[in-house]
Amino acid sequence: MPSIDDLDTPAIVIDAARAEANIRKAQAHADAHGLKLRPHIKTHKLPYWAKKQIAAGAVGITCQKIGEAEVMADAGLTDIFLPYNILGRAKLERLKALHGRVTLSVTADSLVTLEGLAATFADAGQPLQVLVECDTGMGRCGVQTADEAVVLAKAIDSARGLTLGGLMTYPAAGKQTQAESWLAGAKQALAAAGLDCRRISSGGTPDMWRSGENSVVTEYRPGTYIYLDRYQVAKGVGSLDDCALTVLATVVSHPTPTRAILDSGSKALSSDTLGLSDFGELLGVPGARVTGLSEEHGNVTLSDGAKLRIGERVRVVPDHCCVVTNLFDQVHLIDGDKVLETLPVAARGRMG
Amino acid sequence: MPSIDDLDTPAIVIDAARAEANIRKAQAHADAHGLKLRPHIKTHKLPYWAKKQIAAGAVGITCQKIGEAEVMADAGLTDIFLPYNILGRAKLERLKALHGRVTLSVTADSLVTLEGLAATFADAGQPLQVLVECDTGMGRCGVQTADEAVVLAKAIDSARGLTLGGLMTYPAAGKQTQAESWLAGAKQALAAAGLDCRRISSGGTPDMWRSGENSVVTEYRPGTYIYLDRYQVAKGVGSLDDCALTVLATVVSHPTPTRAILDSGSKALSSDTLGLSDFGELLGVPGARVTGLSEEHGNVTLSDGAKLRIGERVRVVPDHCCVVTNLFDQVHLIDGDKVLETLPVAARGRMG
Repeated sequence: MPSIDDLDTPAIVIDAARAEANIRKAQAHADAHGLKLRPHIKTHKLPYWAKKQIAAGAVGITCQKIGEAEVMADAGLTDIFLPYNILGRAKLERLKALHGRVTLSVTADSLVTLEGLAATFADAGQPLQVLVECDTGMGRCGVQTADEAVVLAKAIDSARGLTLGGLMTYPAAGKQTQAESWLAGAKQALAAAGLDCRRISSGGTPDMWRSGENSVVTEYRPGTYIYLDRYQVAKGVGSLDDCALTVLATVVSHPTPTRAILDSGSKALSSDTLGLSDFGELLGVPGARVTGLSEEHGNVTLSDGAKLRIGERVRVVPDHCCVVTNLFDQVHLIDGDKVLETLPVAARGRMG
Repeated sequence: MPSIDDLDTPAIVIDAARAEANIRKAQAHADAHGLKLRPHIKTHKLPYWAKKQIAAGAVGITCQKIGEAEVMADAGLTDIFLPYNILGRAKLERLKALHGRVTLSVTADSLVTLEGLAATFADAGQPLQVLVECDTGMGRCGVQTADEAVVLAKAIDSARGLTLGGLMTYPAAGKQTQAESWLAGAKQALAAAGLDCRRISSGGTPDMWRSGENSVVTEYRPGTYIYLDRYQVAKGVGSLDDCALTVLATVVSHPTPTRAILDSGSKALSSDTLGLSDFGELLGVPGARVTGLSEEHGNVTLSDGAKLRIGERVRVVPDHCCVVTNLFDQVHLIDGDKVLETLPVAARGRMG
């Protein structure tokens, strides 16, 4: 069996046992709180993990792009939620083709999106389930008020090829309570209009552990929980020992006693810090911080007697694992120093 | 001929005439100042443009990764500079194989790197040309003093399979003068030690236009000049009308009068702002700024009466085009609204 020492750097290595433990832990939380788990595959983009998530008890998966959903459908995944406004003839035709193959649901936050869906699915054998996307504080997509949600829900309910699924939100980090009361109000408004609200779908790994109690939410779409990263550790979701994904890097230069350079820059670790200081943490080297990135170089600042030597290999826990996955064509599953399997990141680069 | 309207979004579209004009302009500057131009392909990662750059008069190309150099060699490029410390048996073997196929040169900033090169190339038919990497103010790789440069230059000169190429730097932005005097001092120190300094190689697009006059630099390695981006515009290199690369995106949501959402987030535009405010500029929509990114959503803030409508397509000039290229598997060359050609980003994902 190949060893981690045989891998060229930079490379993504994933501690398989940690990822599996993270899958089990989230599923157990969902089960204990009567939540349906619908993991977001944007984090791993791998059918391998999607199937493991389903096997652990997930009701289906979440994808953000039709291209990702197509890859997952090709791999045998059968229940896919695409919480995105799908617009334009080309994408709508692909959506319709996908709908013929798997159990599909989508979201809409405007009548424009709904018109496209309704026109495309008017003659579909099975109606397409559509949820109303709600802006419960994130300030991204979504209707702004419960009244707007009712307008869209009615439009879905009355369109021939569509069926109302319910409500969907991506809550702002730490604003779980605000999202909850927003959704409860919208659910009530839908009920007052005679509209059924079967699914209320929420997401985000950091707040998942606070979800479930006395909640109107029926399903949860966490993504990052499978790998975790520095951001999740900063949010208290787990420790560095729970992080499954690391970037294996080589020290290529050591120009001064306090500066070392890795062969991993913004094209390997990404510049996305999610607001954290520094760009990554070196496992087992306290006092070493990735303080700067250029495209193919990572600047490490050494303090408190931390030492590195040229040619040494290190493992970096990135700030945001989902965007790191998206930079590499393959990942290596490991068990200690053994490489168990090398997998192509099948849904990487599926932009549309 | 397909139209830009036929492309799925998000997509990279490249105004071919602008890129060609940018190639010609840089070559003319280099020619007028007696500089050899050695374009960095990290920006485009395409043999198509590398060949155009050579045809315009470049002496060779620059790659940052062996994997990029292998792709370029496979495509017929014959003179490749790899200004990077190459370490580890696997990479050194690949470097040696590449050296058998093309005219290759590399850099080193430590004796550790040189030992690996010397051991690998001791029995090579042709010696490998090695330049000493110098930190002239960037604070990344490179020897810190002229004395250190002399030590490494001597080691290169005395190693059987290596030959001394000269000095290489990536200067800090705007510190051209400082870099120049550093390099002049090191050149003098090498001369005093009886060492020849055939090549002095510098880089960076923004400062290229100040290079050449009374300079010790003999060759220049600009990368971004071919496409340009918001950062280069901010640095005064050109205007938005000179930017060849844009990301074609669709407005997928318009939740409030001042907020619109694009289908292009950090996985399409990247979070790398190079210190700029905002994440991109919408061509032809003054008052529209990309003020936030999540993975697959770009938040646009509208002011001064700027208007967008759901389903509308826009073109975004990103802050840093080199990292955007690295996110997409293909690019489309355009002439106005016509799509001339679709090219795979051949060297994307060649991490090692």
